[in-house]
Parts: sequence; structure tokens; C-alpha cells
Amino acid sequence: MAEVRNKQVVLRDYVVGFPKESDMNTVEGSITLKVPEGSNDVLLKNLYLSCDPYMRMLMSKIDQEGFGSYTPDSPLSGYGVSKVVESGHPDYKKGDLVWGITKWEEFSLVPAAQIRTKIENTDVPLSYYTGILGMPGMTAYAGFFELGSPKKGENVFVSAASGAVGQLVGQFAKLTGCYVVGSAGSKEKVDLLKNKFGFDEAFNYKEESDLNGTLKRYFPEGIDIYFENVGGKTLDAVLPNMRLHGRIPVCGMVSQYNLIEPEGVTNLTNLIFKQIRMEGFIVSKFYHLYSNFLEFVLPHIREGKVVYVEDIVEGLENGPAALVGLYTGRNVGKQVVVVARD
Amino acid sequence: MAEVRNKQVVLRDYVVGFPKESDMNTVEGSITLKVPEGSNDVLLKNLYLSCDPYMRMLMSKIDQEGFGSYTPDSPLSGYGVSKVVESGHPDYKKGDLVWGITKWEEFSLVPAAQIRTKIENTDVPLSYYTGILGMPGMTAYAGFFELGSPKKGENVFVSAASGAVGQLVGQFAKLTGCYVVGSAGSKEKVDLLKNKFGFDEAFNYKEESDLNGTLKRYFPEGIDIYFENVGGKTLDAVLPNMRLHGRIPVCGMVSQYNLIEPEGVTNLTNLIFKQIRMEGFIVSKFYHLYSNFLEFVLPHIREGKVVYVEDIVEGLENGPAALVGLYTGRNVGKQVVVVARD
Repeated sequence: MAEVRNKQVVLRDYVVGFPKESDMNTVEGSITLKVPEGSNDVLLKNLYLSCDPYMRMLMSKIDQEGFGSYTPDSPLSGYGVSKVVESGHPDYKKGDLVWGITKWEEFSLVPAAQIRTKIENTDVPLSYYTGILGMPGMTAYAGFFELGSPKKGENVFVSAASGAVGQLVGQFAKLTGCYVVGSAGSKEKVDLLKNKFGFDEAFNYKEESDLNGTLKRYFPEGIDIYFENVGGKTLDAVLPNMRLHGRIPVCGMVSQYNLIEPEGVTNLTNLIFKQIRMEGFIVSKFYHLYSNFLEFVLPHIREGKVVYVEDIVEGLENGPAALVGLYTGRNVGKQVVVVARD
Repeated sequence: MAEVRNKQVVLRDYVVGFPKESDMNTVEGSITLKVPEGSNDVLLKNLYLSCDPYMRMLMSKIDQEGFGSYTPDSPLSGYGVSKVVESGHPDYKKGDLVWGITKWEEFSLVPAAQIRTKIENTDVPLSYYTGILGMPGMTAYAGFFELGSPKKGENVFVSAASGAVGQLVGQFAKLTGCYVVGSAGSKEKVDLLKNKFGFDEAFNYKEESDLNGTLKRYFPEGIDIYFENVGGKTLDAVLPNMRLHGRIPVCGMVSQYNLIEPEGVTNLTNLIFKQIRMEGFIVSKFYHLYSNFLEFVLPHIREGKVVYVEDIVEGLENGPAALVGLYTGRNVGKQVVVVARD
């Protein structure tokens, strides 16, 4: 069986501080397009790869509990949409489209358990399975509805609001009848929040010198749900603005991932008086709700009631720059890397 | 109707930073021992007053949501055990013993709604209704069982562990079959924790230079429940030592109440990976469980399976020093002020 070229993005070495493009290398490997005899693995042709903030954590040498670390000189792993080339597992067959955890390379041999699910609905863009119909979509759904327990008329604040998860939380909040305000890092993103995603209000946090005062202006009666994506100073400004019995689903703290000394949060005593529940979560705990989620979100997508903005980069070799861009806020919407369209 | 003397402890002025004895004055007021015609209020003779950490908050000018502030030149208010002198309310009659919110004075006229409940069980010390059978007891019970959701074999860490609430959390944890470690601020308190309250281990946090390392030593497999009484540096050291799906009931953050600039907590990203739930609470939300609590705890007290240490100070005029002592850790066990024994 002939080998074929298998371009890969590998980690050069563990990262300290902000990641740079040069922390990764694009290399030419090779692969035999065959599942080894007796193996239950599945051979995938990768189509779309997902750039997700949590990947920064795997670039550090420290193994965060529940995650692993990437291995230097090995390809990154992450969520992606792929096509089955050959399958050693009865659940999958050649030609199936799937999404799940794959590797940053053209072809990957993966254990079937890494595949999240077969893709049945193809009347929507395939890349959506890295975003609104994939991990970020489930994250927004579970974090907002399961942990946020939103009620009509409540006040919702979303940080990193134009990102892969945030743009959905805002739209889900509006569907629930909430008042929702988002923060983002550029005028372009703020415009998107207000004009495309239907947030009631939005602001550029980089232009606000007194975030506490800004939040008081947008939430004179306080915040019921803060969907936490950034951590640090933003969380500290939010806490005094929370309302009695507020909820803070902690989805991420992207502002902190690259800091050697994270910012100190000083206003946590607000948790007590206001009886606030702050809860970190990982989406994998909620994948059993995936079919409910599809039933909820697909009709909204088809009717144009929920929209999704992607930032699509062509070519695996442009993956490192796209991934690094997440941490400077370069991307507008969900960051996707196209390896192949078919 | 003749007036009688009514000694009172009043706030001199709003407090900034650590409270001092001189922030309060003992003054001689007077009171007519009669409920005004047509009033539903209840006239109380105060017996035991409770010194509770939350009282520091009410000494600040800033009104924390859900609380008020004390008024300068007016007596402090707080939990206490009292005897009804006269009642304008049908639920209470002369001679009843009650506990609830009263004022720091010899006699108080209070709205009946401030009385938490009549005291029925008097085979235990009356002062217990400021502690184990009062607000701190309910706080330990609700915080540990309702928010902590403990399971047999889990690992529990309690800070301020010899205090009014902490000593009970530790004993409840042992009754549940947990491994429990407590921290306190003196050798005497550490001895109490190990020898009187049955904690598996205890340490003096003032003697530990690397709290993170100390916790790793006592919890090589991590902490399932951290019962938070102190906040700040302790919380920051606990977070990396929490276990997957850990719970942090936030009862208080006494180390932070007197700081003008609270300590920054930098390890909150642990909430995400470890899917930790951190929840602030106020005991008043749980008073509907009070009769369940009594059913649970009274037999344990009578059988000597749950013990309670009080630090009893005689005389209202010694109240300010007792209250201030809470914030330097002078008290050993629940701090009570005796106004009168009968």
C-alpha cells in the first residue's frame, strides 16, 4: 500500500506566556491510507479544524486535571469535521461525515471513541459542526440553559460575546426573552453584536476605562446571569454588579490563559451577600443533551432566527496563525481552518 | 410607667479597616418596660448576644445588598437569646424564651418578625441558641449538607475550623464518614480540632509558609468540599488542590472584611477544568429546615456525639472587645456575650 503525504501542524515546544506562530511547525509527514489489520480505529480525511481557546492550556507543560498536554513534535489535536476514508469500527463506514476530536493534519487514524457523532444534517454548512452545531454550540446551550437557568426578563451579560460561544449565548438569551449586553474587543465586533446577533447593547471593553461604571450604566438593576468567557478584571468588575441569586456559568477565562501571573479577583465577597452560584463546566459532561440541542437549534438556523459568523482560513499551513489570533482577538466570529472542502 | 436603665452598645461611627473597641461606646439609655398601646411588637430582656463575623459588614457605610448598615449612635443589632417581658403579638407571651435578631442592649422592643423562634428545648445550655442551635448551627448544616452535598469517604477542608460554624462542619463531616482537615490560628485551636472535635488532621495556618504545599500534604488526592470561611490567600491555595466536581460553599470570607484592598484570588481557572461549583449563601434562605436540623442535632448533643465550645464573656460592656476579637482570632470557639443569665 502506497504512502501519501500527510502535512501536519506540530508543537515545537511547550509554551510559556502568549503563544506565537513560531511555537508550531508545519511539517510533511506521510501516512498509509489503510486501517491496520485487526484495528477498530477509523481513518479520517480532515476537512475543517476548529480553533478553540482551551487549546492554549494543552500547550503548557503543566497537565491541568482532566486534560492532557500536547506532545512536542507531534501534531496538535482538537475538534474537527472529517470524512471517513476507511473504518475498522462497525459504527462508521467509508464516506461518512463525522465530527469529534481529530488531529491537525491531512489524514488521521483515530480511535472510534474520539468521534463525537456522525453528521446527518448536511443542509447547513459542514463547517458549522466545528461551531454552532459542534462543541461551542453545545457549550453555549448547556452553559446558558443548564447552569444559567435563565428566566424571561432577566439581565444577561456575555463577555467575548462575538466569539464562537458568546454569539450564541446572546441569541439564546434573546430567544428566552432576556435583556442581553455583550462586550467585545473592536468596533466591528460591537457592530456585529448589535446589528447581526440582536444583543440589546454592546460595548468595546478596550475603550472603557471604568468597567464597573460601564456595567452599572448598562445594568442599573444588576446582572442575573454573567456568562463568563474571559476572567480577570472583567469578572472583578462584574461581581459588584451581580444581582441577588445571580448565576455565573464559567465557560472560560481566556484573558488569563497566557498570563504567567494571573490577575487577582478581589470582589468575591459579593458571592456571599448576593448568594451567587459560580460554576465551572466542561461541555463533555453535557453531550448526552446533543440530540435535544440539535432539535432546538436546527429549526432556528433554517428559519434564520439564529445566525452564526465564522472566520474561515484556508489551508492547514495557516492554522498556527489562526490559532494564535484567538488570544489577541484577531478573529471575528468562530475561527475555522479549512484543510480540504471535500 | 417608670423608665428603667437600658445599657446599650452603640456604633460611634462607620468603620474603615479593622474595627477597634473604640469604634463602639457603651452608653446608658432608658426604656419604659411596656409595649406601646396597639403595637404588635415584643419587649425582650436580652440574655445572650452573639458575636458574628458578618457584623463587621454592617459597620461599613456601604450598604451590601441584602443587608443594611448600622446607624451611628444607635445600638448594634445581631442574633441573641432573650426572654419576653411583654408581648403585643399573639405568638409570644411573657416569660417565653426566644432567639432571633435583637439589639445590643439590656431590653429591646422588636417587631415580632425579628424573632426567629420560641425556644422549646431547655435541657441544653440556653447560650447554645446563639451558636450550635441558632444561626451558626443552621449555617453549618445548610452549607455543608445542602450546598456541599457530601458523600461518605469524601475529603473535606474547613477554614476557621474552630469557630462557631467550622467546629460543627467538621463534626458533621465526620458523622457523614468524610476525611476532614481544619485550619485555625493557634496551637490551642489546633489541639481542640484534633482532640475535641475529632478532625482527622488540623494545622495552624500561621505556621505554614506554603499553604498550597501544606494542603497537598494533607490532601494528596485533592479536596472534594472546601467549606469557605476566610477567603483571600487560603482560597487561592485551595483552588489548585480541589478535585474534579468539587464544591465550595462560601459561608464567609472573614480574612477580607477588614481589608480596604482585598487580596486577589488568582487561581479561579481551576473552576473550569475541575468543574467546581462555588456558591455563596446566607442562612436565612434555609431557615425552613430548622426543625429538621433540630431533629438531627439535638440527639447528637444529648448523646455527646456532637460537642460545642463557646467563649463566653460576661457583661454587655465587654461586648465591643469580644466582637473585635473575632477579627484577630482572639476567641476560642463561639463568641457569646452574657447580658443577663435570667
